[in-house]
Amino acid sequence: MKNALNVGLLGFGTVGSGTAKILLTQEKLLEQRTGYPVNLNWICDKDLSSDRGFQVPPEILTDDVNNLFNDPDLDIFIELIGGLEPARTFVLKAIENGKHVVTANKALLATHGFEIFEAASRAGVEIGFEASVGGGIPCIKALKEGLVANNVDTVIGIMNGTANYILTSMTDQGLEFDVALAEAQRLGYAEADPTYDIEGIDTAHKLAITATLAFGQRISLNDIYTEGISRLAPVDISFAGELGYTIKLLAIGRQKDGIVDLRIHPTMVPSGHLLAQVRGAYNAFYFTGDSVGKVMFYGMGAGQMPTGSAIVADVVDIARNQAQGCTSRVPALSIPFEDIKPVRIKPLDDVRGRYYFRFTVKDQPGVLSRISGILGKEEISIASVVQKGRGPESSVPIVMLTHEASEGRVRAALAQIDREDFVLDETMTIRIEDLEALEDHQDG
Amino acid sequence: MKNALNVGLLGFGTVGSGTAKILLTQEKLLEQRTGYPVNLNWICDKDLSSDRGFQVPPEILTDDVNNLFNDPDLDIFIELIGGLEPARTFVLKAIENGKHVVTANKALLATHGFEIFEAASRAGVEIGFEASVGGGIPCIKALKEGLVANNVDTVIGIMNGTANYILTSMTDQGLEFDVALAEAQRLGYAEADPTYDIEGIDTAHKLAITATLAFGQRISLNDIYTEGISRLAPVDISFAGELGYTIKLLAIGRQKDGIVDLRIHPTMVPSGHLLAQVRGAYNAFYFTGDSVGKVMFYGMGAGQMPTGSAIVADVVDIARNQAQGCTSRVPALSIPFEDIKPVRIKPLDDVRGRYYFRFTVKDQPGVLSRISGILGKEEISIASVVQKGRGPESSVPIVMLTHEASEGRVRAALAQIDREDFVLDETMTIRIEDLEALEDHQDG
Repeated sequence: MKNALNVGLLGFGTVGSGTAKILLTQEKLLEQRTGYPVNLNWICDKDLSSDRGFQVPPEILTDDVNNLFNDPDLDIFIELIGGLEPARTFVLKAIENGKHVVTANKALLATHGFEIFEAASRAGVEIGFEASVGGGIPCIKALKEGLVANNVDTVIGIMNGTANYILTSMTDQGLEFDVALAEAQRLGYAEADPTYDIEGIDTAHKLAITATLAFGQRISLNDIYTEGISRLAPVDISFAGELGYTIKLLAIGRQKDGIVDLRIHPTMVPSGHLLAQVRGAYNAFYFTGDSVGKVMFYGMGAGQMPTGSAIVADVVDIARNQAQGCTSRVPALSIPFEDIKPVRIKPLDDVRGRYYFRFTVKDQPGVLSRISGILGKEEISIASVVQKGRGPESSVPIVMLTHEASEGRVRAALAQIDREDFVLDETMTIRIEDLEALEDHQDG
Repeated sequence: MKNALNVGLLGFGTVGSGTAKILLTQEKLLEQRTGYPVNLNWICDKDLSSDRGFQVPPEILTDDVNNLFNDPDLDIFIELIGGLEPARTFVLKAIENGKHVVTANKALLATHGFEIFEAASRAGVEIGFEASVGGGIPCIKALKEGLVANNVDTVIGIMNGTANYILTSMTDQGLEFDVALAEAQRLGYAEADPTYDIEGIDTAHKLAITATLAFGQRISLNDIYTEGISRLAPVDISFAGELGYTIKLLAIGRQKDGIVDLRIHPTMVPSGHLLAQVRGAYNAFYFTGDSVGKVMFYGMGAGQMPTGSAIVADVVDIARNQAQGCTSRVPALSIPFEDIKPVRIKPLDDVRGRYYFRFTVKDQPGVLSRISGILGKEEISIASVVQKGRGPESSVPIVMLTHEASEGRVRAALAQIDREDFVLDETMTIRIEDLEALEDHQDG
């Protein structure tokens, strides 16, 4: 049995610095909680020049990752460089060299996760990935351990802080998307290239990981319908508000009888629901399980120290195993790798739900009748209609909420409507999730 | 290494039935997640007559708890009878016989926890107590594992579903406390003797456990100032609402420089805060840590299946250890038992905060001046005053919110004011927690 745990860190950027800071400044706390010293043997980055605001022993700095692979005492390889390559190669190399891996790399896991989990399973090393989803919120551990007695049916999350920050500013201040984005970039909440965050891709990475765990199926990015927030207009947010809804970019995963429904899209949620109250850069994960009922986990989904908190929690988990001479006591995906089933996806066309439509049409007689006629033929029934004010160039917005309808029928109807002469712009569609009021669930 | 895990259950009431139901009906799921069968060897209760709604093999039913102690194959003893005795004796006996213990008994742990943790530590067995706090919400695991990289500064919780249910009805429907309580009793949310729930005692049990874990100090019930909700009047709730606050029964634990402040009392929280949105029988745990920032965990804090979910999660945790031949990889209190420090309590008089006062006074000149004079002498400065309407017999309620003041000064001032002739009823005091807006925390 070893009498210390030795850790090497690849990537000394934002999260790397947060992780190193915790490892170097909380030595006593970590030793108390793991039973032995947790040493940071290496920090590896190409750029080691800038000051991170805390003392780093110079001898642990290196720009050669081979120092980590070849360190026979190294127990854990922490990968924080992000992206697919060379992260994939490095992680596989670390596994091959018998190192446990801790990573915050959701893109890597969503894309090459199974290759990595399989390699780790063969090599008998652990993969910690709490930090890849929900920053400091221990939602991965909740799925693998805290809720282990449950069949999880629903995973709904606000998984991207940038998108939520932008939506919150649009809602509070009535900003246009572009303006809210620029403001988020100025304040450091959005990157120079915000595509991954605003188009739902980062959220899809996180849903792929979370849903794989929750449903025990081999879920990849291609299984997830993904739509971002860049088309949302202030008018949609204000109509939603008047109708009692708040628009959030939700990751939605549902499982019924082994068939899963996986989607990322702007979603209208009842304004009184806790998920609607998750503001700014915060994240929230809402799960339902057959025993526990509804639970929600809330916190910062990104950032230097919250993500560092999750990385170090994984390190401590592995340290506590090693202190007892055991390894992988919880399989990486909660159940043995070979028990993960192939994915069975519910076709998007078959998904049923309620919809918000905003038609941009000419202000002329007969339009409403024509639209409702087309919807009626597709068996889409209208719950309410709002027509109010004028758009530019004598266009009018007509807003409708539907009763439950199938996505396939909705698409067919909208394709037909959008070909009509009176339609001046592509119809805006927002899906509605009438999540049961959380307090309805009672169990005795 | 053993090839199965054998469990015995003492107490076949509500939570016992939920636990047994999961163990008996989710055998396959549990075997997949632990690596071997989890067998329910015994169900022990004095009353085994009534039908629990699912099939129980008759040979595992017993009314003699010695069958559990003397079963050499039994690995885990699940205690679900509640109360102090004979629960304490049985738990200690199980430990002595080398059984791991899983319990939902918060009263037992808050009262005899250290004796039990010490005995378990000596005997090398585990104590699982996730179910003792927050029902199905994995908040104990979060403190011991998910947030392990943090020094936790704040533990604030809505920890009692009954009290929260009553407060929610009082708020939504303007009910008197007694009416709301009777309604809760009729619906099964409150027990015939509701004292523990409404007077904050159950909440204090849970805070003692949570704060011990969070702050690493030996906290007992006597260290916690405890005040219940039975004195609240609809007028207080409606004044609070007008002032932008919602009244919740909060457990508050704060730690600064090793000094802890522990309180249970009705509290005004800003209505826009997530904690204010926790409605009905739901619970929420709000923690702050030096790395993770603010996190919140939400779910059903009681009930048959949610609590069963937590019990079985503890069983699986122990099973996963045993499958690897390791035990107590995470100490019961997250750090070694001998590292838990004596408690260092901040005297209540030194606690500073803002206050709501409702004075019930004669409608006569000079009253406001006299009250504000006394407050002024105690250095309590007034933030706002509302005087409105009439009480019975020409009394008037005067409501004041203060700026930050010390509890000691507030008590001194109120003692003096309540001796005045014009005061017709004891002054109602509610503490205000202006929790920072959750979304303010940003970390890069």
